[in-house]
Amino acid sequence: MKNKHISQVGEKELIKILLDKRDKKLVVNDKKVQKSYHDDAALIKNVTNYTVISTDMLIQHTHFPKQMNPYQMGQKVVTVNVSDIIAMNATPQSILISMALPPEMTLKEYDELTDGILNKCEQYNITLIGGDINQNSEIILSGTSTGIIDEEIKLQSNIKEGDLIGVSGELGGPAAALDLLYEKDNIPEENKKEIIKTLLEPELPMKLSQTLRKYPDITTSITDITDGLAVELGHLSDKNKEIGFEIYYNKLPYNKNIEKVAEINNKDLTDYLLHFGEEFELLMTINEEEYKKHEDELNLHIIGKTNKSDKITLIKEDSVEIIPTRGYEHLKDD
Amino acid sequence: MKNKHISQVGEKELIKILLDKRDKKLVVNDKKVQKSYHDDAALIKNVTNYTVISTDMLIQHTHFPKQMNPYQMGQKVVTVNVSDIIAMNATPQSILISMALPPEMTLKEYDELTDGILNKCEQYNITLIGGDINQNSEIILSGTSTGIIDEEIKLQSNIKEGDLIGVSGELGGPAAALDLLYEKDNIPEENKKEIIKTLLEPELPMKLSQTLRKYPDITTSITDITDGLAVELGHLSDKNKEIGFEIYYNKLPYNKNIEKVAEINNKDLTDYLLHFGEEFELLMTINEEEYKKHEDELNLHIIGKTNKSDKITLIKEDSVEIIPTRGYEHLKDD
Repeated sequence: MKNKHISQVGEKELIKILLDKRDKKLVVNDKKVQKSYHDDAALIKNVTNYTVISTDMLIQHTHFPKQMNPYQMGQKVVTVNVSDIIAMNATPQSILISMALPPEMTLKEYDELTDGILNKCEQYNITLIGGDINQNSEIILSGTSTGIIDEEIKLQSNIKEGDLIGVSGELGGPAAALDLLYEKDNIPEENKKEIIKTLLEPELPMKLSQTLRKYPDITTSITDITDGLAVELGHLSDKNKEIGFEIYYNKLPYNKNIEKVAEINNKDLTDYLLHFGEEFELLMTINEEEYKKHEDELNLHIIGKTNKSDKITLIKEDSVEIIPTRGYEHLKDD
Repeated sequence: MKNKHISQVGEKELIKILLDKRDKKLVVNDKKVQKSYHDDAALIKNVTNYTVISTDMLIQHTHFPKQMNPYQMGQKVVTVNVSDIIAMNATPQSILISMALPPEMTLKEYDELTDGILNKCEQYNITLIGGDINQNSEIILSGTSTGIIDEEIKLQSNIKEGDLIGVSGELGGPAAALDLLYEKDNIPEENKKEIIKTLLEPELPMKLSQTLRKYPDITTSITDITDGLAVELGHLSDKNKEIGFEIYYNKLPYNKNIEKVAEINNKDLTDYLLHFGEEFELLMTINEEEYKKHEDELNLHIIGKTNKSDKITLIKEDSVEIIPTRGYEHLKDD
């Protein structure tokens, strides 16, 4: 067992091994960090509020498609990290970024990279407060973001039966974009650009996030969809025993042009929508009554409802399918 | 200029470019993070205290000598990051670690790596609260550590004329260790081990750090010596205009065996002591009066005194030399 390669068990199991060991060492009443373990970000209790903190590392060959320029890389490291903060219903506050850069990078490229970082910080109203620069053959950007939340901590284990399931925006764009960049395409240049932008320049639903903080009773849980809708539903299911999730296929929001991309590339549209990720939209479970009060302000897509079946199902016009909660996992052999 | 490679300007200038751009965007009264920019760690103001936060990335080919095992790598990423927290006179609290690991790493090695991380966390009384696992051809460990400080923030710009200069332990070990590992040696195995340990298993002066927090009036500034004594004095000099630093050569503490290592390798002992780094000892400026009250509890090495010469000098028995504040810089061509 111990001589197995780590790629035989994969990222998920590796994290479990680490956290199991960590938990054995933990003093049970370590209140500073007790609620922090398995959500999008960790919580540090202050006197009257919580500091929310999360980290994400991006490595060129895995996370930056060849077509991504330094400006977009800089944007992405900020977006990925702030995404975890708004997924905790917290107000983004600051970011630290450690970089490893190749020596032959030009100053012009460095300038673009740092513009991408700082312009995104400005857009999200956060400050870059720290970092580190190293040398490496390819670009690595490791961010740590912080946020603040006063009291209504939005953990992922509070889902109730009968909650609505909502997403903040269109799904499937990044999956289709990858096929457009690397595989076949024959769709108009303008539609193409719009799809590719979802992969190379992802945006966060900041306005929605602000509204959700204003009305903390609306959501019973929030997470981002970085690993794909199916995987994220799987995580929520793990944390909420006896809760089932039914998703209405015809309510899933997407850019109609990705249907063509799927067709040309012999892909299943469902895979784009459910099994890819890199989305940076928010997935929420929602108290229906509270939602109705502020529906007009929210601009949400309601895609399903929770039940007590303990299953994750996809309701199509003429069938009900169980959604497999598979998705991409780092360090896992196929 | 813009087509220059970044290795023609180096890490220090690259950070300056970034921070200058950042500062131009900053709202002047951004009080949350205003004191955070140029010290070992950033500060986030809470209601009654500060969260101190710092990040450091370690890349195998740069930061882990070939002889370092996974257990020691895990230890090192924790030590490097917590070092910046105690350099702010803060109480270490938590750490997040993003890892990139090669797929052919064995589970046994992963187990050792995570033991190294968690055992150091236990020793420093902090909790691992987050992280991320990715795949890469070599090991990358990027840590972010947090700490808490109530009020007496120890910034590096408050040094007074006549302060004592102190260090927490012996210098030069890691520099000599590298020569022992890669160059010539003919010193006894036991002495060798002791020196090599300072490089492969660096320790933090946690006990001293605790005492310094108990008596915050003793120190007027604290920093760690990760880049070498000369470079760190240079940083302090930059932040304290009109303050000079005189170092007494015969007061510098070191393991006598490294003299032999220097001799065999035709190296200058002064280079080991002043110009290498990777030390993880603390460098402090000290109010003499407050120091005298608690001297017995502190076990410090007093190595010099500040003056108003605006120079950094090394006082030897029969000469006074200006200390050049050079040191290793990432991404800088020689």
